Amino acid sequence: MKYSLAEIAKQIGAELRTPKAATSTLAPEIEGVASIASANSADIIFLDDPKHLESALNSKAAAIILHQDPAKLATRGQQHKPLLIAAHPKLAFARAAALLATPGAWQLGVHGTAIVHKNAKIGLGASVGAMATIEDGASVGTRSHIGAGCRIGARVVIGADCSIAPNVTIYSGVTLHDRVMVHAGAVLGSDGFGYVRDVATGKYEKFPQQGRLEIHDDVEIGANATIDRGALDVTVIGRGTKVDNLVHIGHNVRIGENVVIAAQTGISGSSVIEDEVIVGGQVGIAEHVTIKKGAILGAKCGVPSGKTIQGGGMVYWGIPARPIKQHLKEMALLARMAKGEKRKRD
Amino acid sequence: MKYSLAEIAKQIGAELRTPKAATSTLAPEIEGVASIASANSADIIFLDDPKHLESALNSKAAAIILHQDPAKLATRGQQHKPLLIAAHPKLAFARAAALLATPGAWQLGVHGTAIVHKNAKIGLGASVGAMATIEDGASVGTRSHIGAGCRIGARVVIGADCSIAPNVTIYSGVTLHDRVMVHAGAVLGSDGFGYVRDVATGKYEKFPQQGRLEIHDDVEIGANATIDRGALDVTVIGRGTKVDNLVHIGHNVRIGENVVIAAQTGISGSSVIEDEVIVGGQVGIAEHVTIKKGAILGAKCGVPSGKTIQGGGMVYWGIPARPIKQHLKEMALLARMAKGEKRKRD
Amino acid sequence: MKYSLAEIAKQIGAELRTPKAATSTLAPEIEGVASIASANSADIIFLDDPKHLESALNSKAAAIILHQDPAKLATRGQQHKPLLIAAHPKLAFARAAALLATPGAWQLGVHGTAIVHKNAKIGLGASVGAMATIEDGASVGTRSHIGAGCRIGARVVIGADCSIAPNVTIYSGVTLHDRVMVHAGAVLGSDGFGYVRDVATGKYEKFPQQGRLEIHDDVEIGANATIDRGALDVTVIGRGTKVDNLVHIGHNVRIGENVVIAAQTGISGSSVIEDEVIVGGQVGIAEHVTIKKGAILGAKCGVPSGKTIQGGGMVYWGIPARPIKQHLKEMALLARMAKGEKRKRD
Repeated sequence: MKYSLAEIAKQIGAELRTPKAATSTLAPEIEGVASIASANSADIIFLDDPKHLESALNSKAAAIILHQDPAKLATRGQQHKPLLIAAHPKLAFARAAALLATPGAWQLGVHGTAIVHKNAKIGLGASVGAMATIEDGASVGTRSHIGAGCRIGARVVIGADCSIAPNVTIYSGVTLHDRVMVHAGAVLGSDGFGYVRDVATGKYEKFPQQGRLEIHDDVEIGANATIDRGALDVTVIGRGTKVDNLVHIGHNVRIGENVVIAAQTGISGSSVIEDEVIVGGQVGIAEHVTIKKGAILGAKCGVPSGKTIQGGGMVYWGIPARPIKQHLKEMALLARMAKGEKRKRD
Repeated sequence: MKYSLAEIAKQIGAELRTPKAATSTLAPEIEGVASIASANSADIIFLDDPKHLESALNSKAAAIILHQDPAKLATRGQQHKPLLIAAHPKLAFARAAALLATPGAWQLGVHGTAIVHKNAKIGLGASVGAMATIEDGASVGTRSHIGAGCRIGARVVIGADCSIAPNVTIYSGVTLHDRVMVHAGAVLGSDGFGYVRDVATGKYEKFPQQGRLEIHDDVEIGANATIDRGALDVTVIGRGTKVDNLVHIGHNVRIGENVVIAAQTGISGSSVIEDEVIVGGQVGIAEHVTIKKGAILGAKCGVPSGKTIQGGGMVYWGIPARPIKQHLKEMALLARMAKGEKRKRD
Repeated sequence: MKYSLAEIAKQIGAELRTPKAATSTLAPEIEGVASIASANSADIIFLDDPKHLESALNSKAAAIILHQDPAKLATRGQQHKPLLIAAHPKLAFARAAALLATPGAWQLGVHGTAIVHKNAKIGLGASVGAMATIEDGASVGTRSHIGAGCRIGARVVIGADCSIAPNVTIYSGVTLHDRVMVHAGAVLGSDGFGYVRDVATGKYEKFPQQGRLEIHDDVEIGANATIDRGALDVTVIGRGTKVDNLVHIGHNVRIGENVVIAAQTGISGSSVIEDEVIVGGQVGIAEHVTIKKGAILGAKCGVPSGKTIQGGGMVYWGIPARPIKQHLKEMALLARMAKGEKRKRD
C-alpha cells in the first residue's frame, strides 16, 4: 500500500513538519518503512536514540518519525527532511509499517490441491494454501489464511483475519479467535504429558488428554512452538499474548492477556500466568505455579512446583526464582568471598 | 465406545456400589470421562483429593471412582451416586478413559493423495492420511495410523497399533515397534551433531551420521521433539518410555524402559539413561553421561560430560547436578549469609 | 560408491600399509565406514583411543585408519589387517565416509505432485520432492534437493548442492548459499519477536519483521531449529557454521564463520557471535550481546543483555556467564562452607 506523508501522519497520530527546503523533493508517496541504513527514498525511518540523528538526516529516507525538540534540529541548519513528530516514535513507526504493509499475496479461495472436508466451512475472503487439509466440521473465518501443508483437525474453529503459516498442525477441537497469527511448524492442541504409573508393573499408562485449547484474539505464536490441549478441561491463551519460537505450554495452563513469553520458555501443566506478565527466554515454570499480574521473570529463571510469584512489576531471577535484588546480592557476596579467599591464600 | 457401569467396573478392576437412591436414575450407559467441573450425566469422574468430595457428589457425573471409606460417605446421608471403589482411583480412571475412548475417525486404507512407494507395505487395518509419503521398502504395521503430511523414509519399519500424528518426519531406516505414539512435527532419525575439525583450515567436516534409531513398544514422543539416529551405531528408546514436547535426544543415546523425560530436556550424544529414571523439564545431560536406574533429575538441572549419576530414587538438582539436599543446603547457607551481611551493614 | 583401499588412501591423504599376511584376503573394494562393533568385511573403521586397538584388530573390518607407531603394532605379531596411517584418524575417517557415501536416492527433477510456480527456477540436476511447494520467483540451484512437503516462499534463493530435508519451511526472501544442509522441520525466516507496547492500552503492537535472512556456504541446520528474519535489516549465519536441533536464533543476529552451536541454545535479537565461537547446549544469549572470536560458552550458561564475552579460547560458564575458573572456585567455596557448617553443627 502507498500513502502520502500527510495521510500517514493522520493515521498514526503524528504531526507532519515539512521544511521549506524539502517541499520540492518531497516523495509524493511512501511505500514502506526501513532502518536508517537500508532506507530508500520512498521509505520512512524512525529515531529512537538521539545518537543516530546525524545518520538519519543523511539517510536516503523520505521522512523521519521522531520525538524531538524541532528547534534544536533547526539550529543545525541542515534539516531538510520532513519530520513526523510523535509521542512514541517506535510505536508510530510500527503503526506506519502496518499501514504500508503489502497484504499477503495469497490467492483467495481454496487451492486446488487442498483437501477441505465437505462439512468444513471456509469464510468469505479466506484462503487455504496448497496441500493443506481441513477436517470434518472445522471452520475458517473471513479473510483468514491457512498456509500450505497445514493440518486443521476436526471441529477446529479459526476466527476472522487469522494467519496460519505453512506446516502448522492444529489438533481437533482447538479454537482460535480473531487475528491470531501462528508461525510455521507450530503444534496446537497436542496431547499433554500426563500418565499414571501402575506401581505393580512399573508402567506408565496414559491419562486422558481430551480437553480443549482456546486461543483468544490478537495472540501471536512463534515457529515450532507447542501448546497442549487440556487433559480434561481447557488450556487458555489470553487476548493479546505473544508467544515466541519453541515455547512449550503444557496442559491446563491458563495464560492471561497481554503476556509476553520469550523463546524456549516452558510452562508445565496447570500453571496460571496472570495478565501483563513478562517472561524471558528459556524460563522454566513448573506445574501448579501462579505468576501474579505484571510480574517479570528474568531469562533462564526457574519457578518450582506450586509456588506463587508476586506481581506488580517485581523482577525475579535465578533457579529457584527469587527477587532479583536478593539473587544479585547473594551472587555478589559469593564472588567477593571467593576473591578474598584467593588473596588470603596468596 | 459405550459401556455399562458394571462392565466398566469389571474392566478396570473396581468394585461397583450402587446406592438404593441411585438405582432408578442410573445412566444405562457411560460415554466418557470428565473432570468434576465439566462432567455430564453420561461421564465418570474420579476423586484424588478428599477436599473435592462435596463437588464430586454434587456434579452431574454418572459415577465417581474413588478410594474411600464408604461408611464415612454413608453417614453423610447425601450419597446417591454409584461409586467405583478402586485401590488407585487415578489409574482406574485412566483405564476407564482408554476403554471409553472413541477410536480415531481415520478412514481405513491409503488416502487417495498419499504416495506409497510400490515396495512399501501397508498392514491390514492400517491407514495413511492425505498427502503423506511413504518411501521405498518402508512398512506400516497392522492397525497403525500415519497422519496427513507425514514423511516416512525408505526402509522405515513401523509396528502394529502405532499412531503417528500429522507432519511427522521419520528418516530412512528408523524402526518403531508396537503401540508407539508420535505427536505432530516430531523428527525421528535426523543426523546427529558430529563434526571433525580440520585444524589446518578451521573448518568442521561432517562425521558420518549413518546409524539407526530404534524405538521400542509403548513409547510416546511429544510434539516437535527431535531424536537423532546413531552416528555409526544405534540410538535406542526403551519400552514404555515417555518423551515430552521439544525434547532433544542426540546420537547414540541409549534410554532404558519406563523412563519419563519432561519437555525441552536435551540429552547429548552417547549418554545412557537407565530404566525408570525420571527427568524433569529443561534438564541438560551432556555427552557420555550415565544416569543410573531410578534416579530423579529435577527440572533445569545439568549433568556435565562423562559424569555418572547414582540411581535408586536419589534426587539431583542444580548445575552441575548434585544431591538435592546438598544443593538446598548450599543455597540456604548463601541466602543466610547475604541476609546477615545486610544486617551487619545496617 | 565403492573404492579400493589404495584409492581411498590417496583421497584422504593416508599412507596404506598392507601386511604380508593380509594381501591374500584383502577386500578388493571398500563399501563403507562403520564402528568397530558393527563393521563388516567391506567396511573401514578408525581408532581414536589406543584402548580399543585389540577389538579393532579383531573386528571384521577390512582396514583400520589410525595414528600409530606401526613398529609397536608389529611387535604384537598379530597384525594382519591393512592400516591407513593418518595424522588425524577421525578426520581421515570422516573424509573416507564422505567419499564412500551413497548419493541421495532422489529422483531428479520435480515430482509430479510438487507445485512449482511458473516464475520459479529449478537448476540442472536439482530435485524437488513430493508435495513440496515453491513460490513465485524462488530459485533452487544446481544439484540441490528439496525434500517432500517443504514450503519454499517467494523469492527464496537456494544455492548449489544444498539439501533440504522434508517439511522444512523457508519464508519469503531468504537466501541460502551453496552446500547448505537443513534438517526436517526447521523454519527459516520466520518473524522475529518484536513488539511495541502502547502504554495507554497495554497492548503490544507488532514491530515490522520485514528484513532478510542470509545463510552462507556449508552451514548445517538441525531438525526443528528456528531462525528469524531481520526486523528491518538482516540475520546472518556465516560460512561453515553448524547449528544443532531445536536451536533458536532471533532477528538481526549476526553469526560468524565456523561457529558451532549445540542443541536447544537460544540467541536473542541483535546479538553478534564472532568466528569460531563454540556454544554448548541450552545456552541462552540475551539481546545485544557480543561473543568475541573463539570464545567457548559451556552448556546451559547465560549471557545477559548487552554483555561482551572475551574470546581467544576463554571458557565461560554459569548464569550469568563468567570465566569458568572463577565460577568453579565460587561453587567449590560454597560447597566447602556448607560442609564445614554441617560439621560445626554436629
